[in-house]
Amino acid sequence: MTRPLAAALAAVLLAALAAAAVRADEGMWTLDAFPRERVAREHGFDVTPDFLERARLASVRLSMGCSGSFVSPDGLVMTNHHCVADCLAQLSTADEDLMAEGFWAPDRDGERVCPALQVDQLVSVTDVTERVRAAAPAEASDAEANEARKAAIAEIENACSEGDAWQCQVVGLYRGGVYHLYRSRKYTDVRLVFASEDSIAYFGGDPDNFNFPRFDLDAGFLRVYEDGKPARTPDFFPWSDAGARDGDLLFLSGHPGSTDRLLTVAELEYQRDVAYPERLLRMSEFRGQLDEYSRRGTEQARTAQDPLLGVENRLKASLGEWRALLSAGLIARKAEEEAALRAKVEADPRLKAAYASAWDEVAAAQQVYRRMHLAFEMIEGGQAFRSDLFWYARSLLRAAAERDKPQAERLAEYRDAALPRLERNLLAAAPVYPEVEELRLRFGLTRLREELGTDHPLVRKVLGQESPGELAHRLVSGSRLADPEARRALWEGGAPAVAASDDPVIAFARAIDADARALRKEYEDRVEAPKRLATEKIARARFEVLGTGVYPDATFSLRMTYGRVVGWEEPDGRPVPPFTTLGGTYERATGRDPYRLPESWLKAREALPADLPFNFVTTHDIIGGNSGSPVLDTRGHVVGLVFDGNLHSLGGRFWFDPTLNRAVVLDARALLESLRTVYRADRLVREIEATRVKAGKGKKPKKVGAGAR
Amino acid sequence: MTRPLAAALAAVLLAALAAAAVRADEGMWTLDAFPRERVAREHGFDVTPDFLERARLASVRLSMGCSGSFVSPDGLVMTNHHCVADCLAQLSTADEDLMAEGFWAPDRDGERVCPALQVDQLVSVTDVTERVRAAAPAEASDAEANEARKAAIAEIENACSEGDAWQCQVVGLYRGGVYHLYRSRKYTDVRLVFASEDSIAYFGGDPDNFNFPRFDLDAGFLRVYEDGKPARTPDFFPWSDAGARDGDLLFLSGHPGSTDRLLTVAELEYQRDVAYPERLLRMSEFRGQLDEYSRRGTEQARTAQDPLLGVENRLKASLGEWRALLSAGLIARKAEEEAALRAKVEADPRLKAAYASAWDEVAAAQQVYRRMHLAFEMIEGGQAFRSDLFWYARSLLRAAAERDKPQAERLAEYRDAALPRLERNLLAAAPVYPEVEELRLRFGLTRLREELGTDHPLVRKVLGQESPGELAHRLVSGSRLADPEARRALWEGGAPAVAASDDPVIAFARAIDADARALRKEYEDRVEAPKRLATEKIARARFEVLGTGVYPDATFSLRMTYGRVVGWEEPDGRPVPPFTTLGGTYERATGRDPYRLPESWLKAREALPADLPFNFVTTHDIIGGNSGSPVLDTRGHVVGLVFDGNLHSLGGRFWFDPTLNRAVVLDARALLESLRTVYRADRLVREIEATRVKAGKGKKPKKVGAGAR
Repeated sequence: MTRPLAAALAAVLLAALAAAAVRADEGMWTLDAFPRERVAREHGFDVTPDFLERARLASVRLSMGCSGSFVSPDGLVMTNHHCVADCLAQLSTADEDLMAEGFWAPDRDGERVCPALQVDQLVSVTDVTERVRAAAPAEASDAEANEARKAAIAEIENACSEGDAWQCQVVGLYRGGVYHLYRSRKYTDVRLVFASEDSIAYFGGDPDNFNFPRFDLDAGFLRVYEDGKPARTPDFFPWSDAGARDGDLLFLSGHPGSTDRLLTVAELEYQRDVAYPERLLRMSEFRGQLDEYSRRGTEQARTAQDPLLGVENRLKASLGEWRALLSAGLIARKAEEEAALRAKVEADPRLKAAYASAWDEVAAAQQVYRRMHLAFEMIEGGQAFRSDLFWYARSLLRAAAERDKPQAERLAEYRDAALPRLERNLLAAAPVYPEVEELRLRFGLTRLREELGTDHPLVRKVLGQESPGELAHRLVSGSRLADPEARRALWEGGAPAVAASDDPVIAFARAIDADARALRKEYEDRVEAPKRLATEKIARARFEVLGTGVYPDATFSLRMTYGRVVGWEEPDGRPVPPFTTLGGTYERATGRDPYRLPESWLKAREALPADLPFNFVTTHDIIGGNSGSPVLDTRGHVVGLVFDGNLHSLGGRFWFDPTLNRAVVLDARALLESLRTVYRADRLVREIEATRVKAGKGKKPKKVGAGAR
Repeated sequence: MTRPLAAALAAVLLAALAAAAVRADEGMWTLDAFPRERVAREHGFDVTPDFLERARLASVRLSMGCSGSFVSPDGLVMTNHHCVADCLAQLSTADEDLMAEGFWAPDRDGERVCPALQVDQLVSVTDVTERVRAAAPAEASDAEANEARKAAIAEIENACSEGDAWQCQVVGLYRGGVYHLYRSRKYTDVRLVFASEDSIAYFGGDPDNFNFPRFDLDAGFLRVYEDGKPARTPDFFPWSDAGARDGDLLFLSGHPGSTDRLLTVAELEYQRDVAYPERLLRMSEFRGQLDEYSRRGTEQARTAQDPLLGVENRLKASLGEWRALLSAGLIARKAEEEAALRAKVEADPRLKAAYASAWDEVAAAQQVYRRMHLAFEMIEGGQAFRSDLFWYARSLLRAAAERDKPQAERLAEYRDAALPRLERNLLAAAPVYPEVEELRLRFGLTRLREELGTDHPLVRKVLGQESPGELAHRLVSGSRLADPEARRALWEGGAPAVAASDDPVIAFARAIDADARALRKEYEDRVEAPKRLATEKIARARFEVLGTGVYPDATFSLRMTYGRVVGWEEPDGRPVPPFTTLGGTYERATGRDPYRLPESWLKAREALPADLPFNFVTTHDIIGGNSGSPVLDTRGHVVGLVFDGNLHSLGGRFWFDPTLNRAVVLDARALLESLRTVYRADRLVREIEATRVKAGKGKKPKKVGAGAR
């Protein structure tokens, strides 16, 4: 990017704002604002519009919060194993554990539908900032302006997503600095093609998660179908015939979920002192519960695995993020940057009048939230009611009520544009495990009483005379909502059917709905609204002072990042080389979980080339949601599949540290080799190799200068 | 206390140091420095030397970390139910659950010996500061000076405790500002007299812990024996014939365990950012494990109850302490106080030369500890090896090695003065539950790998090729150390027997002992030694600048505090009245744990006076260790038994907030009434009532002015 600062700035401001400038390889760039000049200057490579265009069409987003890419013209989607884990769990039974055994469809008829999974391909982006902003009259209160914006967004999305083929979403970027309409082609018939055993996909398990060296085959293949046939996907990423080397410049396109790099200091302090500690303690205890529960037996281990992996991953990630917040430098640097920007705004009468109050407005809203956050998160946020059954019940109850209202008056998650996916999620045939449901619900209810106190009116209302365990048992054992047909009847029956239902979970959701909605309303009017208006002001102040050559926080929208294959040096001086090898896997294996290799790998040991690169690290700026992103060479060919970051990358939620922050990538060579040698997945290997041949013949993007340093 | 500051101090210092002055009712006072004048001035009551002398002799310390008092001339000790819970658990079997059913010995022969419990009665305090300080030559390094001090302390304790009747301990006060030798009469034959069902002792359980209103009969009675007969204890607290009223001035003598009010800012920041978060996350997860384990069945619930109650109590307490550290005011105020004291020291050349470097020395030692703390706490601190079996093994192994060394060269916990109690703890017939042991050990080993990383040399050494669960299972299932006779053989056999043992836990402890000792040595030389010398300097600087009218941090040594019966107002404006009643208990009961009343109480409902005070709150400055302390009226008669503090009291580890900090007390009237009406413990009631009659006849301490405000 071009440096945003002119020489006219005072030296003191310069010093602070220079620190705010984007660092080497930093940035999750929207494709319309990719820093082409900067990359050309720093890396000697020209990222052409064609390159970006293909990246847009060959990249996909998976509805459970992952990234992926088309890697053949026949709808083949490459993503992570942990992105298809929900599907594996849903397709598993007590007799067939697809997580443990893996899955491979030797022919196309064997490809199995993943319930509730949706794949989106971005086709267009339109700036709708002015339409959103113009929605509110000038004299509107914060709450009214917020409502008006949400109504305008609903209208725009609704108009865009007419018909069943499109997924439309208005994405606020730069915390409301701009609003873009993302229109995507959606694929709702998504089938499982391949997944390895979980023991090699997550080899090293929780101890190695977010660590490196690493030895994981964290890959899964899906296929999107149209009209019962594999979809035609002419825009795809061919497989590299070379692979990545130390120092190579690589690109990565995907959907980073969310970052908080533009939070104000008041918000960061709340995160550090309140939000993270509470969340971490809750997760730690829940992890302990699930882990101990899963030791009761094989079936308990199987049914608890999915939530256990989930909480362990979030726990470790959150801990890393929080440690970054606690580190001496982070908030201090953010405070300096904020002070410098505020000083610049204060110094200009026009800027001052327009924006100067914004930071205090955020801080005031944050104070309001501090006082209400526990009740809000527990009752409306659902922390007290962690269970699929409760989610079904509340969704059915609210959808019935909301669908009868005009678009603009609905809760955002029940607007027309959101209903098709909601319907699919509600009606998908996902198994519900009553014991795990009870455990989750009991845990949430126990936390509710503990955090709000036995004497809180909402606690008394929720629990009545029952203990958390009794209530959880009564709800779970009495509910019929585990049956998709029961849910379908309530979904299709609408408000009268829901009102007539005596399902205990529906009754429970109904009994607390008014309280939950009141908390939602209070949150939206007193926290969300003033914050939205204030952060819009801060975004505009930033544009005016710093220019537009910056990138927005991640919002699970498509981004392109660039970086190189580089190891790093730990703060204690220990160097970490960038590559591991297949052979290293066998050296690390102890035969005990989580260092136990599956039979297939033990058998294939001699046949696998020991020195073939297995995993490697790069300087790409990624975060959760990027899981499953393809890693591309300068020709746009697949050389890897990102599946993790190192521990230092977790601070990436708040800032980017180019010396330590690394993405962890599965090498495409090892992936293909294992498909061939370990799994003999010949059909899949042929489909991938066919793209490699084609790639050799042309499609080479224009290149200026050397791609490698 | 007399205000320590002269008008000569600059205004800026005055402002900060005034904040450092002791607040109303603040202070855990040693009996030799009780602020008699201050109490007389503020409360109009003269605390005579007689009053203090009787408090010293009638107060006792319980070896598991509690306080208690003699309440009859026949060795009857009153303390909390949760202070006899270990004993109840140890005496329980699968067929007789004394925690659930309670215990009452209708005659003296039925009083049952509590294994490993020791009761100490303080008989003298001697200042040995100069002997300790003089032990190190002037030119000694920090590490040498530290060793010399420890050797001198060992020698003093050893000389004092000759014979079996005395417990001697050199207590460092004011973080090394003074050293006092505490000599106590020790009682090692301690028997259980009475304990209620746990459901009324901890009515409200974890949700109500550290909360108020409260309805708990958290009381237990023990009796100390000599030569097989009840000990004669002519110094005891008689029972009040009146009870406490709102506003009454009361006294409380007991053994607060530890406070950190004199930590430097560098130490506080370490606690806030590193120590508490790590500990809290560990405890949360462990709690989840234990709680879920205890749901497997009745026997699991019974065997896990003691550790579960323990971790829940510590978790809640630590969370409150940590929230105090995170609160906006605490560290800021400490920083102001520290800056003011440092400025005063810097301003005087003599003080500067002697003390000015101390704070930076503490900070430097803290930095060293930050880098080593994980390995130290895990391996030497035993966090990775949480299990009774491991504690037995390490103690036997080390005792065998240490007992052969001269006093001064031993690890502190193996000096002669400490050996009798160690022996009793090692050889006591406490049950070991293998499943719970495995769970605890597996949890610790899992944390070890997680916190140090799979690739850490010590992790590799500890785990080898085994998983945490496998190692835990192998050790627990193969060990014979659960058998007291096996331990006795190793204890009496000494080094040769231990060396010859092939017990897997002994072998395991042996294999890591060199590494653990190396960490201990590094800690003592590089952290403990420089800190000890530096905090001594700070203590002396404080004496010189602030005078001696201050109180030292709690050290589980005898203290007297004073305060009144007063409710408080919550920060949100809600007033909390000071008393609850027996009748309120029945209103709160839901019939579900932890609000389920025992049968005995349900039956007694009509017979109990509904409006009799049950629990109340006071402004006394207490902390963990004070559990079981008697609450006395101005005549020195028992009006209550402290068993808890409110949530705000948890910040008391770091500071005292007179507006919010409250002690929670069991009213002596309700205690006696329940013994009479619910339990028909006639023998005990008669023994207590006999003291009440005597009290009415005289023994009234001299009183000046009004005792109540």
